[in-house]
Amino acid sequence: MKLRWIICLALCATPAVAQEAAKQDDAGIVRFKGTSENVKFVFGVAPPVAHLKAGNILESNSLDCFGNALQKPGDTMAMVKGDNPLTGPFFIDGAEPGDTLVVKILDLQVDGNQGVGTFSPGFGAVNSTHYTPVLEAKPLEDRIWYYPIDHEKNTATFQAQDSKFKVSFPVHPFLGCIGVAPANGEARSSIVPAEFGGNMDAPEVSKGNTLYLPVNVAGALFYFGDGHAAMGDGEVAGSAVEVPMRARLRIDVLKKKKIDWPRLENETTLMTTGIYRPVDDAVRIAVTELIHWVHADYGLSELDAYELCSKVCKLHLTEMVDPNYVVIASIEKKYLPAKIK
Amino acid sequence: MKLRWIICLALCATPAVAQEAAKQDDAGIVRFKGTSENVKFVFGVAPPVAHLKAGNILESNSLDCFGNALQKPGDTMAMVKGDNPLTGPFFIDGAEPGDTLVVKILDLQVDGNQGVGTFSPGFGAVNSTHYTPVLEAKPLEDRIWYYPIDHEKNTATFQAQDSKFKVSFPVHPFLGCIGVAPANGEARSSIVPAEFGGNMDAPEVSKGNTLYLPVNVAGALFYFGDGHAAMGDGEVAGSAVEVPMRARLRIDVLKKKKIDWPRLENETTLMTTGIYRPVDDAVRIAVTELIHWVHADYGLSELDAYELCSKVCKLHLTEMVDPNYVVIASIEKKYLPAKIK
Amino acid sequence: MKLRWIICLALCATPAVAQEAAKQDDAGIVRFKGTSENVKFVFGVAPPVAHLKAGNILESNSLDCFGNALQKPGDTMAMVKGDNPLTGPFFIDGAEPGDTLVVKILDLQVDGNQGVGTFSPGFGAVNSTHYTPVLEAKPLEDRIWYYPIDHEKNTATFQAQDSKFKVSFPVHPFLGCIGVAPANGEARSSIVPAEFGGNMDAPEVSKGNTLYLPVNVAGALFYFGDGHAAMGDGEVAGSAVEVPMRARLRIDVLKKKKIDWPRLENETTLMTTGIYRPVDDAVRIAVTELIHWVHADYGLSELDAYELCSKVCKLHLTEMVDPNYVVIASIEKKYLPAKIK
Amino acid sequence: MKLRWIICLALCATPAVAQEAAKQDDAGIVRFKGTSENVKFVFGVAPPVAHLKAGNILESNSLDCFGNALQKPGDTMAMVKGDNPLTGPFFIDGAEPGDTLVVKILDLQVDGNQGVGTFSPGFGAVNSTHYTPVLEAKPLEDRIWYYPIDHEKNTATFQAQDSKFKVSFPVHPFLGCIGVAPANGEARSSIVPAEFGGNMDAPEVSKGNTLYLPVNVAGALFYFGDGHAAMGDGEVAGSAVEVPMRARLRIDVLKKKKIDWPRLENETTLMTTGIYRPVDDAVRIAVTELIHWVHADYGLSELDAYELCSKVCKLHLTEMVDPNYVVIASIEKKYLPAKIK
Repeated sequence: MKLRWIICLALCATPAVAQEAAKQDDAGIVRFKGTSENVKFVFGVAPPVAHLKAGNILESNSLDCFGNALQKPGDTMAMVKGDNPLTGPFFIDGAEPGDTLVVKILDLQVDGNQGVGTFSPGFGAVNSTHYTPVLEAKPLEDRIWYYPIDHEKNTATFQAQDSKFKVSFPVHPFLGCIGVAPANGEARSSIVPAEFGGNMDAPEVSKGNTLYLPVNVAGALFYFGDGHAAMGDGEVAGSAVEVPMRARLRIDVLKKKKIDWPRLENETTLMTTGIYRPVDDAVRIAVTELIHWVHADYGLSELDAYELCSKVCKLHLTEMVDPNYVVIASIEKKYLPAKIK
Repeated sequence: MKLRWIICLALCATPAVAQEAAKQDDAGIVRFKGTSENVKFVFGVAPPVAHLKAGNILESNSLDCFGNALQKPGDTMAMVKGDNPLTGPFFIDGAEPGDTLVVKILDLQVDGNQGVGTFSPGFGAVNSTHYTPVLEAKPLEDRIWYYPIDHEKNTATFQAQDSKFKVSFPVHPFLGCIGVAPANGEARSSIVPAEFGGNMDAPEVSKGNTLYLPVNVAGALFYFGDGHAAMGDGEVAGSAVEVPMRARLRIDVLKKKKIDWPRLENETTLMTTGIYRPVDDAVRIAVTELIHWVHADYGLSELDAYELCSKVCKLHLTEMVDPNYVVIASIEKKYLPAKIK
Repeated sequence: MKLRWIICLALCATPAVAQEAAKQDDAGIVRFKGTSENVKFVFGVAPPVAHLKAGNILESNSLDCFGNALQKPGDTMAMVKGDNPLTGPFFIDGAEPGDTLVVKILDLQVDGNQGVGTFSPGFGAVNSTHYTPVLEAKPLEDRIWYYPIDHEKNTATFQAQDSKFKVSFPVHPFLGCIGVAPANGEARSSIVPAEFGGNMDAPEVSKGNTLYLPVNVAGALFYFGDGHAAMGDGEVAGSAVEVPMRARLRIDVLKKKKIDWPRLENETTLMTTGIYRPVDDAVRIAVTELIHWVHADYGLSELDAYELCSKVCKLHLTEMVDPNYVVIASIEKKYLPAKIK
Repeated sequence: MKLRWIICLALCATPAVAQEAAKQDDAGIVRFKGTSENVKFVFGVAPPVAHLKAGNILESNSLDCFGNALQKPGDTMAMVKGDNPLTGPFFIDGAEPGDTLVVKILDLQVDGNQGVGTFSPGFGAVNSTHYTPVLEAKPLEDRIWYYPIDHEKNTATFQAQDSKFKVSFPVHPFLGCIGVAPANGEARSSIVPAEFGGNMDAPEVSKGNTLYLPVNVAGALFYFGDGHAAMGDGEVAGSAVEVPMRARLRIDVLKKKKIDWPRLENETTLMTTGIYRPVDDAVRIAVTELIHWVHADYGLSELDAYELCSKVCKLHLTEMVDPNYVVIASIEKKYLPAKIK
């Protein structure tokens, strides 16, 4: 009869080794090493690997979305133990449901000299997939590409497989996965983006930007992973230049400030997310969120804000391959009145 | 340091009273009483309220989707503690990931003399919602309708609120929620339908039909709830005639038989589900599932099956209001060759 | 400089032969023979083939959707000169923009002993298409199936191509194409359904039902074609049992009665159409139309009508393969108050 | 009996004044003045206002999308006679179906000192619309905003209506409407974008870029209009800074080169369009088009091109308010092999 408790214990037990790995020094910096032993594959309630206080800085790292399993020609998808291993969760002391978690991206560094891109049948924006299946006489085949990274030139290099063509392009490091435990007792796979953040695959989650996430459970339970060295809009073939990442993040909490969907901000720009399917609905969510934000914090009437967005706002479809799609709507602050609070 | 364990304990502890409530007699019937004390609001891993063996019959009951909180004029949505309380989970001995759980609906009886219908702004097929938001000068208002149920005539009665019109229509009892713990360590709110079943709001989950669900965790962890006395296609305003229900279900397990999406069957008909957004994708999933089923078990080539479906299959949009939409594709067995296995 | 007029003349000239083909007898019956010489391939403004008065009966016929080009094994899609040849247009005397055209389907008879079904890559609900393209290693292949029709048993027979399986199913004749010249000076291909009707592929366009269409130009300019002996929901592989058809239709006009989308009605049921993409939007159009109709003509408040629909209305996805998708929402009149006008 | 010819004559007659307005000088420049007397409201077959030869330059102008009817506070939407009046059609000598029309945007100049923005209930990305209707207690209200344009600073200025806030933003002139007569005998309203171009509302149709359009009828029949001084992504509230425009365009023809969807190109970038609903399908069209283009003209295999797009391509949702939505996928040529033809 004890057997049925095993799952629960596996879910709930805090590995001693993980706890020990987190150290906080006097300067308010918490350091934690993400490894294949302590990663998680679900955004949900799990024993925290470390605690942070508002104002603390987290210095940590993430494995790549394949758990660093693909390293060289000949390695296969079968070697991958799980997608998007997450570092965390981190318990933010004092964060309560109804608060907003604030994550300032201080720095992101690609943690290695190579990235990986893959195509797998059943996943992608323009092939038959799990959620948009079609009948085919024959599907496309499995593929892995390796991208050498030049840290001096800040580039990654694509090498075609069916020809000798190769080309380099700029690196722009960001975290594909970043989020907290979902609301309503849900736990979501690390391939899912939704209201709690998650696998948003948003290049906006990069150095200098601040991400706001709704706090749904005590301690927020913050996770991150799925580092990307570079990615095209929509992540159309299903992968970016996938890399391990070193991250430096400052964590804060806005008490009793509730948001429905993740938001981002930097000195120049307000950014809202819409995360659902079809893309149309993701746009509707992001745009109404942006109008509500501008109305609430900058004082324009909703109709004036709607009109102004129609003239100057931007829409960015970050990915159209995960179980939900992600659109980021943005407006530059220079086009807005002074903030009213 | 103990504080953070509270959520885990709340999630994992099995109330003694619940355990005692489940009794198995010699005839292989397990009886369990669902109450507001033992219901769950998430399809996920939780301590089972009872165990069943393959071949057992479960006699149990569910609260209505409002936890039986709305009983008379003057009651308000604020009295509702949670949507779609679930009876369960039931641990099916021997069910393992990769198996298929078989649930034969032996009987469903409305457990009371009244049903409830509600409209709430933000939820519905043709009003502004959480996932399809629009800017409005003013949203529609909150409403509750009560439906007296006549067990002899087998009818429910609609009484308009803005006029004296009333009309009766037939009762067709079914379970809006029925499902198992999801795959990949996920836990999903009881308002969500997906691969694990859940809030499918499918009138096909009614007496005489057999439901197949993928087993994702040891014991399957079966839940049900959200009884409906009657419902229009699409459940467009967001509710059916919501009722408590008494259910009699036979549970079986198909070992090492894996399905990707819930299926239904009775003596005359094969039914597949597609559960996602937009409806287009739900149709794509349901139709490819049906073609694969006909191909695998009845021997028609995929193209012949596709053509035949184009002539005789049915599509039923059961609901377009929950976080995912549900389409059921079906074909009558009389249009198929003999089953090949 | 005259060359550029040729297209215009070709478009505008009324072939004398066509005009002669239409004859009106004393009983108000107009007879017209549709042939491959006088069919059209566009719903738009073109010289009428005949005139009808309100109250007249039209006795006419249509070619099948392939112009009757596919008759026997060995015939190929290359023999098809155009899809969905239309009989018409018929000029309805006195019909003006802002009126509603009323078409009562008095009788439909399959005009032959055989139907045709086809699959063509690029068209269908669950394969790569023009509007939902995917990359494929290899697409499905072209196919033609012939369906013998037994007029006594009222059945069509499917003969599998990759096995010896054959099966008969009931015939339910209806017109896949029926519509008028579009609004705003538009002309639309006969494969398109939209506000003007067109290629709705709705089994509801069958004997005993009445179709309402918005009049957009003087004379309405009524067309029909694309007879179907039988069809599954969604017309998923892209074709029905395609047949030539003989039609008997009574034409009327509701003066100064404007509708936005086609509607249908019979003694027992109100039916509205929603015709667009994705299916979600087709549902939204059909359901709001139904609620508006019930509110305007039967006096229920919009919220009461919304609630009642959520309990008893039906949704029928007629096709999900044409450039727009078609959903029909319906409610039985027995569930409504007396008509108020 | 002559009455029914009036529509045809109105459609087909070439106003003498229009013909005279077009003049061609020795340098191969054709000048034509668009006025409220010679504009069209449909992309379709109509008598040309002028002829051009391949290599000619067209110097012409367009009215704003309201036919220049809105000029000052107090003017109302009721004064607008039709949306998106088009200048044209221009007959391109030698252009035949199966060819590609090439339009190089040499220059665009805002033709006035003011732009207009409007909101109308029933049109917009995040309000109840004709194609995505919702039930509302009360819709948003009608509004008109005027945007003074400073030609020296190259800015337009937004003045809020519900507060005193005003702000200037850069002008980026482009043509919202540009296209040819559609295929298959269709005629489409000037508010529609589709395979023939049309109301694409694409900021990419600006100075320095070259647009490719499929030729569907003899002479192509080229139209343009709907000048925009500036626009946000998605044109979310339904209008840009709407302005009259002076245009200088070079027209060429690629003989026997067939494209399925409009494409754009400049020295640095390849751009493809996807024009449909939902946005998901627009993305699928644009991305498959881009991969096909890269594969055909630059020699990468389809899988290599797919992978490369996933790393460096851009997606731009130009508008989500017209009857079809428009997405432009692009890749910089510096990331491609040398062109192979």
